[in-house]
Amino acid sequence: MTERSQETLRVGVIGLGIMGRPMARNLARAGFAVTGFSRSRASIDAVADAGVSPGASLGTTIAGADVVVTMLPDTPDVVAVVRGEDGLLARAHPGVIWIDTSTIAPSMAGELAAEATRRGIRTLDAPVSGGESGAVAGTLTIMVGGDRATFEAAGPVLRAVGKTITYVGSSGHGQVTKLCNQVVAAGTLLAVGEGLVLAERAGLDTDAVLRALGAGAAASWMLENLGPRMLARDYRAGFFVDLQLKDLRLVAEEARRLALPLPGAALCEQLFRAVAAAGGGRLGTQALITALRRLAATGESIDPSPTRR
Amino acid sequence: MTERSQETLRVGVIGLGIMGRPMARNLARAGFAVTGFSRSRASIDAVADAGVSPGASLGTTIAGADVVVTMLPDTPDVVAVVRGEDGLLARAHPGVIWIDTSTIAPSMAGELAAEATRRGIRTLDAPVSGGESGAVAGTLTIMVGGDRATFEAAGPVLRAVGKTITYVGSSGHGQVTKLCNQVVAAGTLLAVGEGLVLAERAGLDTDAVLRALGAGAAASWMLENLGPRMLARDYRAGFFVDLQLKDLRLVAEEARRLALPLPGAALCEQLFRAVAAAGGGRLGTQALITALRRLAATGESIDPSPTRR
Repeated sequence: MTERSQETLRVGVIGLGIMGRPMARNLARAGFAVTGFSRSRASIDAVADAGVSPGASLGTTIAGADVVVTMLPDTPDVVAVVRGEDGLLARAHPGVIWIDTSTIAPSMAGELAAEATRRGIRTLDAPVSGGESGAVAGTLTIMVGGDRATFEAAGPVLRAVGKTITYVGSSGHGQVTKLCNQVVAAGTLLAVGEGLVLAERAGLDTDAVLRALGAGAAASWMLENLGPRMLARDYRAGFFVDLQLKDLRLVAEEARRLALPLPGAALCEQLFRAVAAAGGGRLGTQALITALRRLAATGESIDPSPTRR
Repeated sequence: MTERSQETLRVGVIGLGIMGRPMARNLARAGFAVTGFSRSRASIDAVADAGVSPGASLGTTIAGADVVVTMLPDTPDVVAVVRGEDGLLARAHPGVIWIDTSTIAPSMAGELAAEATRRGIRTLDAPVSGGESGAVAGTLTIMVGGDRATFEAAGPVLRAVGKTITYVGSSGHGQVTKLCNQVVAAGTLLAVGEGLVLAERAGLDTDAVLRALGAGAAASWMLENLGPRMLARDYRAGFFVDLQLKDLRLVAEEARRLALPLPGAALCEQLFRAVAAAGGGRLGTQALITALRRLAATGESIDPSPTRR
């Protein structure tokens, strides 16, 4: 990697969903020679017009890259791309940097990093926060674990997709930091949702309530950005309920591994599950308030007759 | 009140605790003729040097005021000052404005306002947020319910103690808005605490975690201001656990009255109660994390022998 200038550094992006696609575009815009690959041919074609070369296969995309960036939905997807026949361990050149920007189980992130290191691959776990809008704007928050030297070497690539880039420690620590982020983000969203259902139920001027709360100790990114959408019942997705649920499952698994009770995070998971159970998995996380409204029986009335089924 | 200029407007402040004392000082600094009264003679003496006249009694303080400001700990204290023999209903002149900046039960706030109105007293419920530091700096957030004309008339007094002053609706609505504020503030604090105990337990660089989380969707006033104190185990009070518990009790009562389930707020109340049970009632609310650490058994070890008592 050090032999090539930034202009000709070849970056292979694996995973071209709502996050991977704009990241690939921003990397191309920053001057890297970007090849994109996805299981979906349509996704590959969709980035081609932004200066991203279509990858012919997973293996060739990896084999032709100095830096491999993965952005995949869940742990098994990353495992498949790393350990698969045509995957990273089989096809990457020694010295390649693999940056996993997916959010996956920290323990598996550590395992995969160890396997890759044995093949001479340098690894970073670098999950992101900021959602689709952050990916499009190139302003993602990136939490990076791995060797500090690898972190320094990957700087130009990370800066092409993110704004606040924090080195948090060794392999896997980026993933745990992301889980901490999700615990705080989900819990803050629940707090906002409960405050607003109380305001709705009490018949308050909810816009005035938002203004008053935003000025003091109750202020948060969630209150400012998703509070108004909750009140307007605008559930268009910045971040899917299904992905929030996946992250809270990873939190629960990690907390279990650490023997750590997290009652608030557990409550968040239950309520997001209620949103998904009602068909809201592809709504934005602000749809959490629909579960609170249903709890408050403003969603569905119950036939009080005990004999009705 | 309209016959006097702002310079000579007489303001009686009832309640000179950690909030009322700096508020009285700021009112005097703004040019009002301020008289302060408290059940504690020491508290009255403590504000005298700041241009606040000592009130001889509750009744004379009220009788000599154009505007009465109450800042008292809980609902019964306000009830006593309003309905007591020497209190507001008995001693206030018609046309006086009574501004209750205490946080009390919204239903009682409505009752007292109705009683005062029948005596020709104009009322505002105007609970504040911002804690001691906000009171000292005169930058409190004030959520005001009552007649809009009374709100306009009281503007100069409110602006002498607060910065963000929001009219939220009729009598009692200021109190409910404050409860919404407390639901969001306490829930956000729980979210921050859980994220940080996860970071501690996983052995992360907690300062790096704070930096990373503060840049994105997990950001909040609580994370920024109380997160570092949680990590530093600095529990000096900006806002007492005991007062947070009182506010969460008011939330629980109001939610019960509205038949509204608020599981997150209920969880917060339980955990703050655990802090108080352990002797932390006079610590700052950031001590919530001590209950989470105890849950995680990093506080006390259990003798596993079932026969030991």
